[in-house]
Amino acid sequence: MSLNSDLTIVLDVMGGDHGPSITISAAIMAIKKQPNLHLILCGDADIITKNLARLKISPEQLANHKQLSIFPTTEVVLMSDKPIVALRNKKDSSMRKALDLVNEGRAQACVSAGNTGALFSMAHFVLKNIPGVERPALISSLPTHDAKKRVFMLDLGANVFCDSHVLYQFGVMGSVMAEQVDGITKPRIALLNMGEEAIKGSDHIKMAALELSENKDINYVGFIEGCDIFSNKADVIVCDGFVGNVALKTCEGVARLVYQKSKTAFSASLLAKLFGSLIKPSFKKLFKTMNPDQYNGASLIGLRGIVVKSHGNANASAFLSAIEEAIKEVERQVPEKIKNSFEHNFTVR
Amino acid sequence: MSLNSDLTIVLDVMGGDHGPSITISAAIMAIKKQPNLHLILCGDADIITKNLARLKISPEQLANHKQLSIFPTTEVVLMSDKPIVALRNKKDSSMRKALDLVNEGRAQACVSAGNTGALFSMAHFVLKNIPGVERPALISSLPTHDAKKRVFMLDLGANVFCDSHVLYQFGVMGSVMAEQVDGITKPRIALLNMGEEAIKGSDHIKMAALELSENKDINYVGFIEGCDIFSNKADVIVCDGFVGNVALKTCEGVARLVYQKSKTAFSASLLAKLFGSLIKPSFKKLFKTMNPDQYNGASLIGLRGIVVKSHGNANASAFLSAIEEAIKEVERQVPEKIKNSFEHNFTVR
Repeated sequence: MSLNSDLTIVLDVMGGDHGPSITISAAIMAIKKQPNLHLILCGDADIITKNLARLKISPEQLANHKQLSIFPTTEVVLMSDKPIVALRNKKDSSMRKALDLVNEGRAQACVSAGNTGALFSMAHFVLKNIPGVERPALISSLPTHDAKKRVFMLDLGANVFCDSHVLYQFGVMGSVMAEQVDGITKPRIALLNMGEEAIKGSDHIKMAALELSENKDINYVGFIEGCDIFSNKADVIVCDGFVGNVALKTCEGVARLVYQKSKTAFSASLLAKLFGSLIKPSFKKLFKTMNPDQYNGASLIGLRGIVVKSHGNANASAFLSAIEEAIKEVERQVPEKIKNSFEHNFTVR
Repeated sequence: MSLNSDLTIVLDVMGGDHGPSITISAAIMAIKKQPNLHLILCGDADIITKNLARLKISPEQLANHKQLSIFPTTEVVLMSDKPIVALRNKKDSSMRKALDLVNEGRAQACVSAGNTGALFSMAHFVLKNIPGVERPALISSLPTHDAKKRVFMLDLGANVFCDSHVLYQFGVMGSVMAEQVDGITKPRIALLNMGEEAIKGSDHIKMAALELSENKDINYVGFIEGCDIFSNKADVIVCDGFVGNVALKTCEGVARLVYQKSKTAFSASLLAKLFGSLIKPSFKKLFKTMNPDQYNGASLIGLRGIVVKSHGNANASAFLSAIEEAIKEVERQVPEKIKNSFEHNFTVR
């Protein structure tokens, strides 16, 4: 097992609705695209071996493979497992061991399509928060009207309720993420609210606005409404996990509805069918991006290690996107940069 | 001024971004469609007279008009007015007087495209809650995958935070609304949450779920996620005003994004342009329905009178839809039915 590769990422291959059939296909796609990438396949050794054989990689080839290795585990966290039960009882699960490998420095990031609640609890327990971070958050990105720009949004469901200081910290972490991963100088940070006026919203949102506007390292641009999430008025949108989860899933719902209605329109006549077949791929891509954790994965930030969550229902190309997201975060050293930012922010505050 | 018509609705003609030029055009469209409708045009008499003249109704014709009359006022609530200031200082505004006329029984409903916060505060102050109702709510409807069904959603922004009993009451009011206005027997009531499982979400949502499931008059069907708002799994979706506002405005944002992207696709080639011109009307209509307060208006329910809020940016046909929504609620006696339901629910609980 070569762990001296430039870049080592561990995959929880057992997670997700489709498990190894998807995750291992994505792994092969990833190593082909990135020659300096080493992937540790964490899970049931027999199942992994069989799936590799299906993809024309024999046990002999694996033994000498420079980019692939197996870390065998005996348990699997099920989609139906309660987080607390998984955390207590499944210490030899593929998910838990993948996180342990990140914690031990044997991998630089972990990618899983497994049970979100369990992954969040385990990651929090194993990797611990970056000093000063009160709550880790789930972050992902959505498309905007400007084809070249995306907008990060957090928290997407890791924390049901967040007080003003936690929202403030999400702003700081989101700023680092947009700066490092998308190379944006002074990312525009906005708070999701029910109106743009300063008098709108709950007290904790108003307090968070005050805290963000007082930090000179943060380019706080004010409140933003749901209708402007995609308007490229901000690079990072901050909200609590309940609101973020509802907003994100509403996007998915609208996209599905419009897709269904457009399919009906595209089958109305021969001309419509012809045109529909031309336009469908670009529409399909747009609708996929409206479901970002399915498309790019969502990252848990605020922890001492990198954890990317792919959608439970992800296909191989979506899981590949999640691996690529993890690679970016490793290359840009996102946890390290958040740590620096928090050290700096805690001395100046 | 004939106030003995079967159906009398008062319009705050000064409200909205476009004011009388839109609201009075919509009024003329409404009386043409509904011969037993009487509309009271509440606002600046000179401006109203000029706008009626533009639409070929002379002062002489108005004096004897069976369906139109003016209620002159001297003040206007501006979109920028703070609710509390409007409530205290603008007692002769078109908005306030329109609500007064409903309170005095001289009109059966009020329609306004004015400042939402001010309308909500004034309506609450003038009309008062139905006995037993803790908080009035803003309700509107969204399209579903089933072209013949819509889904009501409340609260859409009248109340930032709602405790469990307030959410429960929203469920009861929403049930009455769906039953009366859309004729649904035993409407399916769901709570918007970040997961379908019973363990998900905040304590007040879990408590509201318990309260709703214990009321045998309510067909409570459980939690629903944002992605299923449009899936026709519920007839009424209940949430607090912050979450509802974000969800609703996110729908509008996604619709705008998809519309922009599809316009780009529709202009890519000659064939695309040709097909685009064929398909655009049906797309446009769908996107409009994703912005329901612009399309149908949103109603304030839980008050002793009927108040329908049209979007500030509504055009004449959208303001007409809001008038038609008000007519429906008058015909089905929604406040009376909510009152009965609350009396019944408070004796059985």
